Amino acid sequence: MADNTILIKNAVILDPNTDYDEKKDLLINNDLISEISDNISDENVDKVIDATGKILLPGFINTHTHLSMTLFRGLADDLALDEWLNDNIWPMEANLNGNYCYIGALLGAVELIKSGTTTFSDMYFYMEDVAKAVEESGIRAVLSYGMIDFGDEEKRKAEIEKNMALFKNCHDAADGRIKVFFGPHSPYTASEELLREVRKLADENDMKIHIHVSETQKEINDVSSEKGLRPFEYLDSIGFLGPDVLCAHCVWLNDNEIDIIKKNDVKISHNPCSNMKLASGIAPVSKLLENDICVSIGTDGASSNNNLDLIEELKTASLLQKVSTLDPKVLTSDEAIAIGTINGAKALGLEDEIGSIEVGKKADLILIDTNNANMIPDSSNLSSNIIYSANGSNVDTTICNGQILMENKKLTTLDEQEIYDKARKAIEELKALL
Amino acid sequence: MADNTILIKNAVILDPNTDYDEKKDLLINNDLISEISDNISDENVDKVIDATGKILLPGFINTHTHLSMTLFRGLADDLALDEWLNDNIWPMEANLNGNYCYIGALLGAVELIKSGTTTFSDMYFYMEDVAKAVEESGIRAVLSYGMIDFGDEEKRKAEIEKNMALFKNCHDAADGRIKVFFGPHSPYTASEELLREVRKLADENDMKIHIHVSETQKEINDVSSEKGLRPFEYLDSIGFLGPDVLCAHCVWLNDNEIDIIKKNDVKISHNPCSNMKLASGIAPVSKLLENDICVSIGTDGASSNNNLDLIEELKTASLLQKVSTLDPKVLTSDEAIAIGTINGAKALGLEDEIGSIEVGKKADLILIDTNNANMIPDSSNLSSNIIYSANGSNVDTTICNGQILMENKKLTTLDEQEIYDKARKAIEELKALL
Repeated sequence: MADNTILIKNAVILDPNTDYDEKKDLLINNDLISEISDNISDENVDKVIDATGKILLPGFINTHTHLSMTLFRGLADDLALDEWLNDNIWPMEANLNGNYCYIGALLGAVELIKSGTTTFSDMYFYMEDVAKAVEESGIRAVLSYGMIDFGDEEKRKAEIEKNMALFKNCHDAADGRIKVFFGPHSPYTASEELLREVRKLADENDMKIHIHVSETQKEINDVSSEKGLRPFEYLDSIGFLGPDVLCAHCVWLNDNEIDIIKKNDVKISHNPCSNMKLASGIAPVSKLLENDICVSIGTDGASSNNNLDLIEELKTASLLQKVSTLDPKVLTSDEAIAIGTINGAKALGLEDEIGSIEVGKKADLILIDTNNANMIPDSSNLSSNIIYSANGSNVDTTICNGQILMENKKLTTLDEQEIYDKARKAIEELKALL
Repeated sequence: MADNTILIKNAVILDPNTDYDEKKDLLINNDLISEISDNISDENVDKVIDATGKILLPGFINTHTHLSMTLFRGLADDLALDEWLNDNIWPMEANLNGNYCYIGALLGAVELIKSGTTTFSDMYFYMEDVAKAVEESGIRAVLSYGMIDFGDEEKRKAEIEKNMALFKNCHDAADGRIKVFFGPHSPYTASEELLREVRKLADENDMKIHIHVSETQKEINDVSSEKGLRPFEYLDSIGFLGPDVLCAHCVWLNDNEIDIIKKNDVKISHNPCSNMKLASGIAPVSKLLENDICVSIGTDGASSNNNLDLIEELKTASLLQKVSTLDPKVLTSDEAIAIGTINGAKALGLEDEIGSIEVGKKADLILIDTNNANMIPDSSNLSSNIIYSANGSNVDTTICNGQILMENKKLTTLDEQEIYDKARKAIEELKALL
């Protein structure tokens, strides 16, 4: 098959690793960035995109979400985590099936692509169906199956089998766009036996791990009273932690736990909107950053956010750190860009492939059109203009793995209206089943 | 002149005062809402808007901004208030003139209209030029001139004269869309003499007052050491406060000050993004609401936000209260809608005219199109869908004083591109003057 080439002309590039001080042309060859230079000829190029007036960035990376939960957007709000989960979300989830999760994942994929996210890391159920949505949409994903055993041995075996089956079926699928992690739900829903088994199988299979840790004060209290240790101390004590472990939330951390995280090179997914909306608490992100811990960003599920807009999430992350430390200089817009791109790649172990704009990396790229009132004037500071002024609606073009998924705000791989209609029908059916 | 009529058909209405449980038709006659009922004939109507799939709300009301500061968007970020103001904003402001403020106000008006705000309350300089932008754009505004005397008697007289001239020239101008308030800048930049004179003139002229109060800890310390009283105690002691006083920020309040605010029926403009970004602090909004104090919402200037999106601001307000009180039930989405609409009207003394959808009120209305990935499914909870899921880009149609300012995301009164180009040129000129 002949190569497929896309040339992006006149791009103002904002990248976390490289300071591109002048406009550049960028050439995509199949799935890879093959050249970045001052002037690339458009001869023999399959497609040319003029980036004049736009900012070119690495696609954003959402390291913690439950994509199919877009179906539950707005279903239950202004509630505490346990009430929201026990009384509203879990009863709905009991009636989920693969088709519903597929539809929810498609709806989520539309929202991600439209708001400039090219990679998401998911933990949920019916993950083969989510993988199908990933395959069709053209987006990149790390999928894990949310394993919960509550100490039940049979359930444990079945859960591990499901996650291993997902690994066998989907890891490296969709032209390598899909990776599979283990997804033990949390230290309070997964038994010590499950966590030890996951650690062992992860080592044997070179798999990584995605888990919720230290989201609420209740979790700290529960784990502390059961184990006599705080969650990260407990996970460390059973040898669970390592550089291949991605922990979502990490709201309530004492200094010893921050040391444990650093020592084990554990990766963090910070979810500020969800933590604020459910009143879980404020993660000590600026302290984690000071300790050179890898902090990435996630939206959590749309039902506790209630959207998947990573630009909004990054602004919220920055503003929340500033006000909670009473220091306006922490979590700058440049740091926010890194958190949303290269740190996300590191958190998923994909930093050699994605997260920055460099020759040889995958062409996961977005263009943000600054010619809109909320981003004008657009001459002062690129990262500030994106993090503090913009939102996902300013994203104009989304490219993943060298494939254009959206151009001039029009999706190319998915039929928006059909997906919206199916999602509306799905939630009505699920409500009727209650 | 014949009446001008607009009929909005099939509207799902979300209103802070009335629970419209079924779709309605709404008739606009000139500047007023003249009928709301189940089925209004489109015979003899000048214009019909089909609101199917959209939510009809009162236009949002931004009770504290400095509109022309859109020119300084992204100019200086990640700095403390004093550094931001003294080293960056004030030097720029020294070179402002009427034309620059006019251009900045036009740019701001474009952003407001596009994101669904129909009324803004401004405090700045060259306010006659801002009034010109209001006149041309069709938006509604409360304008005040920011008076600063630092105790200088001559300066004081000149400042008061400027604000009085603005009142004489512009109050009730633009078909009544413009009101003029006094704008003493703050208790730390306006002398006691200025504040006492403003109070006296406000009473004599039936004018209201817009002022910054208790934004930072530094202000509390400075006022306390100079006056021996905290800012609201001091303002109360000189008889400055009353139901006609709109106070922006109000971050640092003790219980006595909350009592003072309540006793005087003072109105609050809460500015969460600015307070977070400048690390000023977290206003005790849920406590103010518990005390039945009128809390409205403002973006502050775009240079400390950095946008004018009130939906984003209301989400931030809600999430910030939830996390800072660790109570997810405070500042619900319904309360946020009221804060953004009817409370804003009350804060500006305009509750008989705007802030809710009722026959006889001004036709200040917006339509939000829910047929977008970030708002689907759209069947569960209207207010949640708007506050937690949407942003300003979901606004489809904006009507102010019975005039359509935007329809299907196209502006009708302003030339966006021309304004963007002028704003870009203006900031480059201002930078060159430094």
